[in-house]
Amino acid sequence: MTLLVSGWVAIDDIETPFEKRDGLLGGSATPAAMGAALFTDVRLLAAVGEDFPDKSRKLFEGKNIDLDGLVVVPGAKTSRWGGRYHYDMNTRDTLFTELGVNADWQPSLPKGWEATDSIFCAAGDPVVQRALIGGLEGPRASMVDTIKLYIDAAGEEFRTTIGAADFVAINDSEARMLAGTASIAKASSVLLETGTKGVVIKLGEYGAAYRSGDDYFVAPGYPLEDVIDPTGAGDAFAGGFMGFLDSVAEITPAAIRRAIVYGSTVASFQVEDFGPARLLTLTRDEVEARYRQFRSLTHFEVDG
Amino acid sequence: MTLLVSGWVAIDDIETPFEKRDGLLGGSATPAAMGAALFTDVRLLAAVGEDFPDKSRKLFEGKNIDLDGLVVVPGAKTSRWGGRYHYDMNTRDTLFTELGVNADWQPSLPKGWEATDSIFCAAGDPVVQRALIGGLEGPRASMVDTIKLYIDAAGEEFRTTIGAADFVAINDSEARMLAGTASIAKASSVLLETGTKGVVIKLGEYGAAYRSGDDYFVAPGYPLEDVIDPTGAGDAFAGGFMGFLDSVAEITPAAIRRAIVYGSTVASFQVEDFGPARLLTLTRDEVEARYRQFRSLTHFEVDG
Repeated sequence: MTLLVSGWVAIDDIETPFEKRDGLLGGSATPAAMGAALFTDVRLLAAVGEDFPDKSRKLFEGKNIDLDGLVVVPGAKTSRWGGRYHYDMNTRDTLFTELGVNADWQPSLPKGWEATDSIFCAAGDPVVQRALIGGLEGPRASMVDTIKLYIDAAGEEFRTTIGAADFVAINDSEARMLAGTASIAKASSVLLETGTKGVVIKLGEYGAAYRSGDDYFVAPGYPLEDVIDPTGAGDAFAGGFMGFLDSVAEITPAAIRRAIVYGSTVASFQVEDFGPARLLTLTRDEVEARYRQFRSLTHFEVDG
Repeated sequence: MTLLVSGWVAIDDIETPFEKRDGLLGGSATPAAMGAALFTDVRLLAAVGEDFPDKSRKLFEGKNIDLDGLVVVPGAKTSRWGGRYHYDMNTRDTLFTELGVNADWQPSLPKGWEATDSIFCAAGDPVVQRALIGGLEGPRASMVDTIKLYIDAAGEEFRTTIGAADFVAINDSEARMLAGTASIAKASSVLLETGTKGVVIKLGEYGAAYRSGDDYFVAPGYPLEDVIDPTGAGDAFAGGFMGFLDSVAEITPAAIRRAIVYGSTVASFQVEDFGPARLLTLTRDEVEARYRQFRSLTHFEVDG
């Protein structure tokens, strides 16, 4: 099975209350692709500039990630992002965004990738997201993510794109804003009205909630003693979710629940170190062990 | 079995973005006692003034709640609290607090109640909480709650009191503050160092986490489409938790997990209407049905 991951590959400078790291391999597509590659074969679709370091490219190698779609645009610079986290590690300020190559470049489906089985579109222009999904020959699963910028700029387009995707992943604050309600349960109902099959509400350190027409599932956040760098947690979640889903024989409600927990598992590893460091060494065995911990964390008896 | 519930019985004026209600029966002990009474026999320990309405007292009747400890203090006025909720229903402003009788009155164990099986002390002076627990002839379970006021005013006393109780219930923001860490997992570790057996971190709409020396459990919030009045959710949780725990033959780790879910269940009903309205009509059958919904909300397979 193959999963297309579309998004940004960027260079990040990250400050936390405890440490500062520059020049990290980041962007939405990086944790999504690395998280998904634990479960399935990934096709990465992203653009970088001529300045993209060879050592950063090398980090994607040897990981079930097809780099034919990692385009180097002549004369362009790699996107850069700088962020500073507050003491609670849940909120952050953007220090700078250098769009670079992503100011103009729009992803389009590379020739020969039309038969890719599944697709995850990280946050981006909803019209482009829809075109990518529509370019596939009937994917078995598709998911789009978004951020406030695209909801503000293209609310209606975004709704149409959600409706064209099987799943949407969205932060709880953005879901509340988009749906115009304080209730997450009601917000997910409103999002389902777009026609999407399933809504994943990302709750940050509190986990994730999933809602479809006939299912409602909530997974907690994994209780980490130390969060080192929260950057990319949502995209790592999406990578784990779509990577697992792409790997199963049949996409049943039970498989979707398992995918939510696998996504939460990958996200919990992502935040254990700066940038891509933890996912670079993460093994499927480690993922399986933590998945079972999620089970023991949430299990309770119905009849005592 | 019997559970002592100590706290405030007050009259609340509540404003939400949608509605305003005055003269509601409130205070910490009200939802705690009513929640617990679904599971066990409750002994209510609280003080009101001569102005306490007879119709409010009547609301406690016919509910397994012993009112011998509901003291009417001559010449005193019933405590009153006014609060206004923000749009997200998670944050609120206190509009006024009239301490009334609770400015001076301190609860002490009524004669004949020394053999009460379990005790829940809602937020209050930690020295008094400790005296109440110490006055019982070896309760099988004890829990204290707190709020920022008492942590700020009596941090060390509060730590000693936590250590003397089997369980402490605390909001996540207060746990982070008390433990001096952003991590809930680390905060619960720090709180365990006081000597308490189990720490319940209340996560508001995101549910509750429980940590002991050898267990970690997380229950989600129940996904309500409409939260009418969040007042008293934490105390209703504690009432459900301690009420259920008081009713079981043996307090095992599995029973504690079930108690967390019963607490979450009672809390989810508490917020469905203003003041005590929902708990007044709530039946054990409704509680059991929602408890099973919590199970279906969180269950996932380990091997697909």
